[in-house]
Amino acid sequence: MRIDNRQLDQLRSISFERHYTKHAEGSVLVSFGDTKVLCTASVEAGVPRWLKGKNKGWITAEYGMLPRATNTRNQREAARGKQSGRTQEIQRLIGRSLRAMIDLSKLGENTIYIDCDVLQADGGTRTASITGAAIALIDALESVQKSKKLKTDPLIGLVAAVSVGIKNGEAYLDLCYEEDASCDTDLNVVMTQKGEYIEIQGTAEEKPFSRMEANKMLDLAEKGIAELVELQKTALDW
Amino acid sequence: MRIDNRQLDQLRSISFERHYTKHAEGSVLVSFGDTKVLCTASVEAGVPRWLKGKNKGWITAEYGMLPRATNTRNQREAARGKQSGRTQEIQRLIGRSLRAMIDLSKLGENTIYIDCDVLQADGGTRTASITGAAIALIDALESVQKSKKLKTDPLIGLVAAVSVGIKNGEAYLDLCYEEDASCDTDLNVVMTQKGEYIEIQGTAEEKPFSRMEANKMLDLAEKGIAELVELQKTALDW
Amino acid sequence: MRIDNRQLDQLRSISFERHYTKHAEGSVLVSFGDTKVLCTASVEAGVPRWLKGKNKGWITAEYGMLPRATNTRNQREAARGKQSGRTQEIQRLIGRSLRAMIDLSKLGENTIYIDCDVLQADGGTRTASITGAAIALIDALESVQKSKKLKTDPLIGLVAAVSVGIKNGEAYLDLCYEEDASCDTDLNVVMTQKGEYIEIQGTAEEKPFSRMEANKMLDLAEKGIAELVELQKTALDW
Amino acid sequence: MRIDNRQLDQLRSISFERHYTKHAEGSVLVSFGDTKVLCTASVEAGVPRWLKGKNKGWITAEYGMLPRATNTRNQREAARGKQSGRTQEIQRLIGRSLRAMIDLSKLGENTIYIDCDVLQADGGTRTASITGAAIALIDALESVQKSKKLKTDPLIGLVAAVSVGIKNGEAYLDLCYEEDASCDTDLNVVMTQKGEYIEIQGTAEEKPFSRMEANKMLDLAEKGIAELVELQKTALDW
Amino acid sequence: MRIDNRQLDQLRSISFERHYTKHAEGSVLVSFGDTKVLCTASVEAGVPRWLKGKNKGWITAEYGMLPRATNTRNQREAARGKQSGRTQEIQRLIGRSLRAMIDLSKLGENTIYIDCDVLQADGGTRTASITGAAIALIDALESVQKSKKLKTDPLIGLVAAVSVGIKNGEAYLDLCYEEDASCDTDLNVVMTQKGEYIEIQGTAEEKPFSRMEANKMLDLAEKGIAELVELQKTALDW
Amino acid sequence: MRIDNRQLDQLRSISFERHYTKHAEGSVLVSFGDTKVLCTASVEAGVPRWLKGKNKGWITAEYGMLPRATNTRNQREAARGKQSGRTQEIQRLIGRSLRAMIDLSKLGENTIYIDCDVLQADGGTRTASITGAAIALIDALESVQKSKKLKTDPLIGLVAAVSVGIKNGEAYLDLCYEEDASCDTDLNVVMTQKGEYIEIQGTAEEKPFSRMEANKMLDLAEKGIAELVELQKTALDW
Repeated sequence: MRIDNRQLDQLRSISFERHYTKHAEGSVLVSFGDTKVLCTASVEAGVPRWLKGKNKGWITAEYGMLPRATNTRNQREAARGKQSGRTQEIQRLIGRSLRAMIDLSKLGENTIYIDCDVLQADGGTRTASITGAAIALIDALESVQKSKKLKTDPLIGLVAAVSVGIKNGEAYLDLCYEEDASCDTDLNVVMTQKGEYIEIQGTAEEKPFSRMEANKMLDLAEKGIAELVELQKTALDW
Repeated sequence: MRIDNRQLDQLRSISFERHYTKHAEGSVLVSFGDTKVLCTASVEAGVPRWLKGKNKGWITAEYGMLPRATNTRNQREAARGKQSGRTQEIQRLIGRSLRAMIDLSKLGENTIYIDCDVLQADGGTRTASITGAAIALIDALESVQKSKKLKTDPLIGLVAAVSVGIKNGEAYLDLCYEEDASCDTDLNVVMTQKGEYIEIQGTAEEKPFSRMEANKMLDLAEKGIAELVELQKTALDW
Repeated sequence: MRIDNRQLDQLRSISFERHYTKHAEGSVLVSFGDTKVLCTASVEAGVPRWLKGKNKGWITAEYGMLPRATNTRNQREAARGKQSGRTQEIQRLIGRSLRAMIDLSKLGENTIYIDCDVLQADGGTRTASITGAAIALIDALESVQKSKKLKTDPLIGLVAAVSVGIKNGEAYLDLCYEEDASCDTDLNVVMTQKGEYIEIQGTAEEKPFSRMEANKMLDLAEKGIAELVELQKTALDW
Repeated sequence: MRIDNRQLDQLRSISFERHYTKHAEGSVLVSFGDTKVLCTASVEAGVPRWLKGKNKGWITAEYGMLPRATNTRNQREAARGKQSGRTQEIQRLIGRSLRAMIDLSKLGENTIYIDCDVLQADGGTRTASITGAAIALIDALESVQKSKKLKTDPLIGLVAAVSVGIKNGEAYLDLCYEEDASCDTDLNVVMTQKGEYIEIQGTAEEKPFSRMEANKMLDLAEKGIAELVELQKTALDW
Repeated sequence: MRIDNRQLDQLRSISFERHYTKHAEGSVLVSFGDTKVLCTASVEAGVPRWLKGKNKGWITAEYGMLPRATNTRNQREAARGKQSGRTQEIQRLIGRSLRAMIDLSKLGENTIYIDCDVLQADGGTRTASITGAAIALIDALESVQKSKKLKTDPLIGLVAAVSVGIKNGEAYLDLCYEEDASCDTDLNVVMTQKGEYIEIQGTAEEKPFSRMEANKMLDLAEKGIAELVELQKTALDW
Repeated sequence: MRIDNRQLDQLRSISFERHYTKHAEGSVLVSFGDTKVLCTASVEAGVPRWLKGKNKGWITAEYGMLPRATNTRNQREAARGKQSGRTQEIQRLIGRSLRAMIDLSKLGENTIYIDCDVLQADGGTRTASITGAAIALIDALESVQKSKKLKTDPLIGLVAAVSVGIKNGEAYLDLCYEEDASCDTDLNVVMTQKGEYIEIQGTAEEKPFSRMEANKMLDLAEKGIAELVELQKTALDW
């Protein structure tokens, strides 16, 4: 049994609170257990300079943690004057993952900014961010379609993400902070709703892992993501 | 009648959600109407270098807005690499205001970090921050007293803050964003629970104001702050 | 009696040296006792991007202290790589105050940069900056009117500023550094030559102040500013 | 056939030039075809603050590209004032990978800095960096053992890294720049000399990939890394 | 004849106003014609980390121009967030030059900060800075000797600096801005009061110069510096 | 005899490896003994904003040292977030020197970026950079002439640079690091192939130097540069 009484292959309690704030075109408070992330999607006319004139849109993401989202307070990145390597790594991952949801050539010259701000952290903030932001993006897309009169629907489909780990040879789904810290290996997987991979990021700081362990983790991630996609669909009333 | 159907001397709907996040010693989600600010108070042993060895504590504040807390998205300060002048002005105000609540010489060599992060903005984010952080600070203080075995209670009393404005010669209490933008003058007042001033900050970008108008605004602020203090006390079960 | 033998309601010795440097359109060395600030006003064609095409002008201010303007040397902000929160707070105040002197819609698409650089500090650098820069602005305005052929005079009138404080229940006008450091409360007031308020900024780090004390300070500030306006007029040969 | 006439499962021409520069304890110029990276390993007594007193060592990595290592010139990061997200992502990956080679608890309180500077880029700069730095690290380790008199050998074993990709359903080993840009998927794999995984990083910007494709890529990476380890051993005269 | 009616070998009108500001241990307003620089020397106990425990002192310099010291306004370096290459080049030159005046091993573990802030620029700001700061340094040294009880006098002697240029084959002494801009070559020379070189910095952006021209310029600089040293001595009542 | 067995007036072993990297229009690995600098010249259409519309070209230079180019590791400037004063001083010198080779009015609206990156440092990195970059610039120029169809040849001629020093009254040519550190004076000279001066930069941190010593150093530099120009010509097959 796990510290929070879950089965090894069981997700934490997942929830999506849509329209959480009033200004953003898409705004979702996503919870993966005690990890809570506010994901907003903001639509702006225009694209970055390097994309101008190509009749395509763009999606980019930024990520932040409130200073006391964690057990001990972290220095505020705005005060420190730069984003950490970890922050940049995560926001690049979120951006790539969400771009896989959209056919950018059907988006018009519009940019959608995804902002994922962690209000409370308990492991898996990047996977919660991706899974929640996917819904915010869909809400924002609807707003683009209304106001910008897109001819065709740019949506390809949902993506969702989950973490898996290996500890003492056993695979764990959706790690909370304590599990994340004690695992030998940590794998983050992003998949489409059709079960194809967008990203696989596995790291073994403690102990290298075998191909068999990799396979176990990929199996478990596939199961978890299929469940997350169902929960996303319910939240979207699909 | 005002755009949100309030009387001129009426506060917006005010709420305090204590223990909003789980890690911080004090954590309050404060709402002044649609303005929602997450205020946390974090206790750390030690004080800044310039205060070392004086057997005193310190309280400091940081302020931030999520990029899409506002009607149009603002660039993330962490990505931009610096905090704006407005942000610095506000966090200095919050820090000074909260230090007035505490006898720092009774706090031991501890620092309390106040973080005010605006999740949704509709005017008055600095006054909501001060009023909400006051409660987070008291919750954190209790935690210090337990763990650090302070001999005497460092709490002096509550502070609260409100904005007032003048428009067409009439004074308005607790301005929402639309009112704030259309007022001739904007005055932010911070007071103790005994009705004494901590800060008065009045600015007339549009039209200078008379002594009589200043008096009207100070009267109205006094009334509003007295009500806010009562609401704080209720939230604290005092 | 005060440490410099002034009456409680007496300004320090005030002087304005116009045309202090040769390049700037307006250039004034202002002294409030031992506080000496070089205020220049520089005219440039064009306005910030957000104001383009509105047929209006703009006035903005920057503030700095030479590293050894003070009793102990401060780190140079240019070397440190950023302006302190205090600096930003002050330059925003100066900018707002001086914009109140001018009808920006009559200025044409021109920007006037106000630079206030403190050569020697002895308290009240922000109030001296505003009071001196007001004269530099008028000198620069004359230069704009000549070269840009403005149709109507954009000048609304003078502004001046002074600090007041409370110590042991008594109000003091125009605080020098030593008084500023020992006061319970410090109020900076900016007014028009007609006696209306542009800014009121009061701070009680040491001890909250009562409404009666606020009134005493506002009375004293009004008296001081009226005198400063007379001195400005003399300097301008009005 | 590939643009450079290789088989799909064939590495580019690989070389390691040890002792390439004279000051560093380890210094290797590694070439993966036209990708050339200078990898140095520098030993310094002491560890970062958070590791002090734990009787452990530390290994950290930094990565950079000379401005004209690429086809069009990139802005120099030192002139721009910050490292890009891509740079930070890569240097974190290199650091984690190399730490897997060493039992840090046997290193004493010493830090080894790995610097990977790309002189010429043609795809796979991060995998070449890891594979070359592994050798520089071993050379530096020898120097530590001599001068610091370590009691036991901290070396666990070699690591090596390679990229693999999928294009039109076929898997390609060790992508050059042109292949990298045209692939649907790009997977970077880091493994130990025993054939266990340290890192798997797969990204599908163009087209999601299936589990079967993931397996093909992992198979190919395993083959390539086994060959790289042999080449490393030869270079080390093992 | 030159634009300001000087002979080719004639200095501009030079003046030194000692004790110009009241806080600094040394404070000199130096004028080379219309170039006016405020030079302060500030004494602080202690030395930079790399010099600790060597029983030596240190002298370092910083340089800045007020934004409107020049004909058109320059962006404030503190607002821009960094010092320009030109600023850094000049302040390094000033520091090296002034260190040549002092036997650092007799200064005790004290640091003297030289700040040269240009109030008005008309060419030759770096040479005026060095020449004026030399006097500020001597005034500060006297203060160190009194308060720190140095056993022996660390002063080696004065330094002074001047610019020379070549235009149409003729050498000019002490260039004003207009001459500086139109010269083919610009040479800055720093010498001791004994007539030895501390620094020679010659630059030919427009047209290379011959050895003969170099000699002409060095001759002229020698003459000018001898005169400057006499003026320094007079200012110091030596 | 010198530590590396050279005569006082003897250059170190000099080599130029042209076309060292494949992407840059000009790419030279220059060696002055153990000092090795990779110099690239990159051509880009367009000029800096301040030069637009003047039908002129521009040449600018950047300089960097790999962190472990030196005996002890230096912090990476990109990680530190700014270039040191020394770096800026050197890159400004390189830029000025190379601009003297070209008639910018014949270059068309093109910019040539010179990048000098020190792979291994043993004194004289700035003089090696200039001497090597001169060749890279010529290679790049050929590429501009081909692709941009310049009507006339913008090349004026070669420049080369060398360091000279004084130690115990004797002049030394082309100082290695150990000599540089122990010299009383260090003079860097940049000259055209016709034997005219572009830059003279002499610094006496340890001991002022006399006119006679300056002359000795200039004589020696002239000899060294004449030899360097011959070596450049050989490398260019002129």
